Amino acid sequence: MDFQPIIKQIYEQVRAGESRGRVATYIPELGNIPADKFGVYLETCDGKVSGTGDCQEKFSIQSIAKVFSLTLAYDQLGEKVWERVGVEPAGTPFNSLVQLEADKGIPRNPFVNAGALVICDILLDVLADPKADLLAYVRRLADNPTIEYDLSVAASEAATGYRNRALVNLIRAFGNIKHPTEQVLDLYFHKCSLAMSCQELAKAGMYLAKNGFSAAGTQILSESSAKRINAIMQTCGFYDEAGEFAYRVGLPGKSGVGGGILAVHPDRYSLTVWSPPLNEKGNSYRGMKFLERFTTETGTSIF
Amino acid sequence: MDFQPIIKQIYEQVRAGESRGRVATYIPELGNIPADKFGVYLETCDGKVSGTGDCQEKFSIQSIAKVFSLTLAYDQLGEKVWERVGVEPAGTPFNSLVQLEADKGIPRNPFVNAGALVICDILLDVLADPKADLLAYVRRLADNPTIEYDLSVAASEAATGYRNRALVNLIRAFGNIKHPTEQVLDLYFHKCSLAMSCQELAKAGMYLAKNGFSAAGTQILSESSAKRINAIMQTCGFYDEAGEFAYRVGLPGKSGVGGGILAVHPDRYSLTVWSPPLNEKGNSYRGMKFLERFTTETGTSIF
Amino acid sequence: MDFQPIIKQIYEQVRAGESRGRVATYIPELGNIPADKFGVYLETCDGKVSGTGDCQEKFSIQSIAKVFSLTLAYDQLGEKVWERVGVEPAGTPFNSLVQLEADKGIPRNPFVNAGALVICDILLDVLADPKADLLAYVRRLADNPTIEYDLSVAASEAATGYRNRALVNLIRAFGNIKHPTEQVLDLYFHKCSLAMSCQELAKAGMYLAKNGFSAAGTQILSESSAKRINAIMQTCGFYDEAGEFAYRVGLPGKSGVGGGILAVHPDRYSLTVWSPPLNEKGNSYRGMKFLERFTTETGTSIF
Amino acid sequence: MDFQPIIKQIYEQVRAGESRGRVATYIPELGNIPADKFGVYLETCDGKVSGTGDCQEKFSIQSIAKVFSLTLAYDQLGEKVWERVGVEPAGTPFNSLVQLEADKGIPRNPFVNAGALVICDILLDVLADPKADLLAYVRRLADNPTIEYDLSVAASEAATGYRNRALVNLIRAFGNIKHPTEQVLDLYFHKCSLAMSCQELAKAGMYLAKNGFSAAGTQILSESSAKRINAIMQTCGFYDEAGEFAYRVGLPGKSGVGGGILAVHPDRYSLTVWSPPLNEKGNSYRGMKFLERFTTETGTSIF
Repeated sequence: MDFQPIIKQIYEQVRAGESRGRVATYIPELGNIPADKFGVYLETCDGKVSGTGDCQEKFSIQSIAKVFSLTLAYDQLGEKVWERVGVEPAGTPFNSLVQLEADKGIPRNPFVNAGALVICDILLDVLADPKADLLAYVRRLADNPTIEYDLSVAASEAATGYRNRALVNLIRAFGNIKHPTEQVLDLYFHKCSLAMSCQELAKAGMYLAKNGFSAAGTQILSESSAKRINAIMQTCGFYDEAGEFAYRVGLPGKSGVGGGILAVHPDRYSLTVWSPPLNEKGNSYRGMKFLERFTTETGTSIF
Repeated sequence: MDFQPIIKQIYEQVRAGESRGRVATYIPELGNIPADKFGVYLETCDGKVSGTGDCQEKFSIQSIAKVFSLTLAYDQLGEKVWERVGVEPAGTPFNSLVQLEADKGIPRNPFVNAGALVICDILLDVLADPKADLLAYVRRLADNPTIEYDLSVAASEAATGYRNRALVNLIRAFGNIKHPTEQVLDLYFHKCSLAMSCQELAKAGMYLAKNGFSAAGTQILSESSAKRINAIMQTCGFYDEAGEFAYRVGLPGKSGVGGGILAVHPDRYSLTVWSPPLNEKGNSYRGMKFLERFTTETGTSIF
Repeated sequence: MDFQPIIKQIYEQVRAGESRGRVATYIPELGNIPADKFGVYLETCDGKVSGTGDCQEKFSIQSIAKVFSLTLAYDQLGEKVWERVGVEPAGTPFNSLVQLEADKGIPRNPFVNAGALVICDILLDVLADPKADLLAYVRRLADNPTIEYDLSVAASEAATGYRNRALVNLIRAFGNIKHPTEQVLDLYFHKCSLAMSCQELAKAGMYLAKNGFSAAGTQILSESSAKRINAIMQTCGFYDEAGEFAYRVGLPGKSGVGGGILAVHPDRYSLTVWSPPLNEKGNSYRGMKFLERFTTETGTSIF
Repeated sequence: MDFQPIIKQIYEQVRAGESRGRVATYIPELGNIPADKFGVYLETCDGKVSGTGDCQEKFSIQSIAKVFSLTLAYDQLGEKVWERVGVEPAGTPFNSLVQLEADKGIPRNPFVNAGALVICDILLDVLADPKADLLAYVRRLADNPTIEYDLSVAASEAATGYRNRALVNLIRAFGNIKHPTEQVLDLYFHKCSLAMSCQELAKAGMYLAKNGFSAAGTQILSESSAKRINAIMQTCGFYDEAGEFAYRVGLPGKSGVGGGILAVHPDRYSLTVWSPPLNEKGNSYRGMKFLERFTTETGTSIF
């Protein structure tokens, strides 16, 4: 199936429709991105590509990177990862400390900030040169040696990330973070600052559509493990809007406050959207709109 | 694919393995069911059937009936249903009032008790003879005119259902339930008391596997609507264990405190398991075990 | 000390000052009371009386009655009362179910609705003719046989009291309410409907100022028990504003949504204020203002 | 009244009675204190003193110091203090972050850790040499130039205080803490480490019994302000046991995890108890027992 015409058509409709939502400003550096950026890119499991709009412009993938750091930690530790982080939807805003306290320092899932910070603590154990090794891993997923951290975004978040500092200290009080606070945060903020285009991100996510094999054909995970990462994205990938995303879009996916969304259809495609203004739940307003129409019109929800 | 041998094999393994969990006793009538009952049944979209153990013995489907009442309400009201109930995972035990209060009387989803009670209030509006009409609807889904409510189970729950009475009154205080408390509860307790065998339940659930068409070929829902019900089952079908079920089993499904589970693989099959002892999250211990092994060994997770 | 001049002066100042707050309307019958009603009455332990404004007009004392029902239950059961209700401030709005669920059906204190409902359940055990006996008790406290329930207020609340119905059912689910729901609520709604003037209410509260002896000289409680009721009023008498009341006024007291406040200074006086508009915490706006100025200018805080 | 005989008698009874509770160990240095230490000291407003047991041995006053730091901040800022911290009981354990998040960074009261940290942030603004100036202030209250911080206790808490670090960062995220985290914590941990005997502490607390005048006759606060500090102690001084303390003891007071309690009776006395084992709410088991019997037998509850 050639997805280019339908992508183009829905893209134009959504672009012409009303634009709601607000660009995230809590990381100052992100507040400078023009609100009208809008790109879409799709790569099928057999390598056909489609794209439109600003699909080759790099943006800050932010929380979407949590998928890659989880994949790496899961690959290294296997099921032991779940001794330190759960797989249940949080049912509260993404940065809440409430749940964490009730659950005695075990974050609900690896996609809330608390869980991603624990994953960083794990990676500090298993990686020799954590920031460099994680970057190398994402480059390998994307088959692209030019991907970089955006150091100004990392610095911007480091300067304002008090809630994340609170999270690390609270989790440490429960004994579930072991490395020094600033070391954990340094890896975390760098990871979030990864700059990738829709095109690069769709390729990096191919291993989730291809049962564990990267676009370049390397086995990243076993088939069973890839399915499990997809399951977690389905139930926990959209903060307090995971149910809405499953209901409207019907694909495993992960969003970031930079306005990007990665969604995959196992055995069919990897698909990315980028539009910075966020709805009140913190997910890209146009990104959600595009994906809902796309899976409805192509009948490619997984359900 | 002939699923009978693998079903038989996994059934025997799980039966031979340790049995944990406890039979629900908060509805006194359910406490009398022998803990060693265990049945499995699968029907494929092209009509092939497999089953083993106590798969033809009727049990109390309890909360699994919430799928059928939601389907009927959604068929009648369409998207307007979501003005009165959400689609987000609850993140708290199934009968908690906390979330309800925070969300001003809008239950998180139609599968928590609060949400199912609102659905009953809706059905009282749209059905001429609610209990009879709902029963007729389930009989039609299952293509089986012999399905009945178990009146002793309904009476047993009515005599002890104080938390559900609390829920109805609290929701009414927010204006989201309109009919008299006992009328709402009467429909609710009857619905929960539906007695069906694994075989009957698998057939009743076929419309979710067959894009909205029942086993008998009748269109129950549009394809898009059937997908949406599946999505809600995936994110909200297992109380506070929805993420775990997605992770381990990877199918949309719904459990009940009677020990039954209905799971569907869109375009492939409808599958039911029954084993009364429940794990600490309220889902069938052996049911979960069976399904995890089944989707892993057959590679039929949807992810 | 003759309090009449200072009462008169502060009364006039507060009356002349801005009037904020809103008359409670959730009990329809209360919504009809003119917002500019305003009365004050004080009786000293040696029987000197002062009063001004609408101090002889009856109003619905509502939650202030919880002091009298607690006193009666405590007199009957002694310290065993505290097996079924706590003495800690709630830290949440007065009708919240959250705390109750966390504490497994034991209300935080006897002055939140949940706690007062448990007290009613207790009174149903120990009184032969509960409504009549409770009324007789209050008449005895006030040395006044003309005090009555306002049956239209009781009926008005009974018709709308869904949150209280929810509370009774939830507490019963935890086993901490034993009598039929409507029986508990009937006593509760009658108790809240007690109609008394500032003058009558100040006299009824004298036993708390006089170490357990009523204005008429009858011993109602031991000295130690009277002190304990005062202590509970101090920490729990003003919903989520108990700390503010202690800070600004510095007297044990209890407010009601009818706009009344009863405050006592042990060994000195019993003091009542009535002004229907409530602040956002549910306490009389002018009542709080009057009491703050009164204890400040007379130097009669207990602290 | 000569309190020495009754103090001696109750002290012996409580000492002979069962000893429950556990010495706090979360600050390692505190875990080394012998559990059988037990001292009591009382000073009346007219200067009569009574004491027994280990009443002259210094211990770590911990949270009792929050009374002194609040007094200093309130003296400097007046009512503006309450723009940054509330006066309501918390209704949750002393170190919980939940309430703080719900209240957007405004701690419930100055005696929960969060509130005391905000008070430290305030003191960093108004004091030239914060640690030295606060120590000088406490020495002045106690009329005793030998009082010191216990630097090993301060260091011990600094090494393990992750929850307090989490609190500071979370409050800062809401904009209610301005100075660097480690600076705020340094003042906080020093303040908590103050080492004083029952005798010294009773004298330091005299200004709360004497309407704002210290034991040495210096005016520390206005009468009205002293009453207000007492009111806050009454409603918030005992974590989640403030109501119980008001009910059983009936005095404004403040406890610390070192096992000390300061209680005052306005116009009568300042009274201290020290016994390290804590009940499950974090207050001295024998301290509570002693005070309950003392106010009951002497009839000196304020209520």
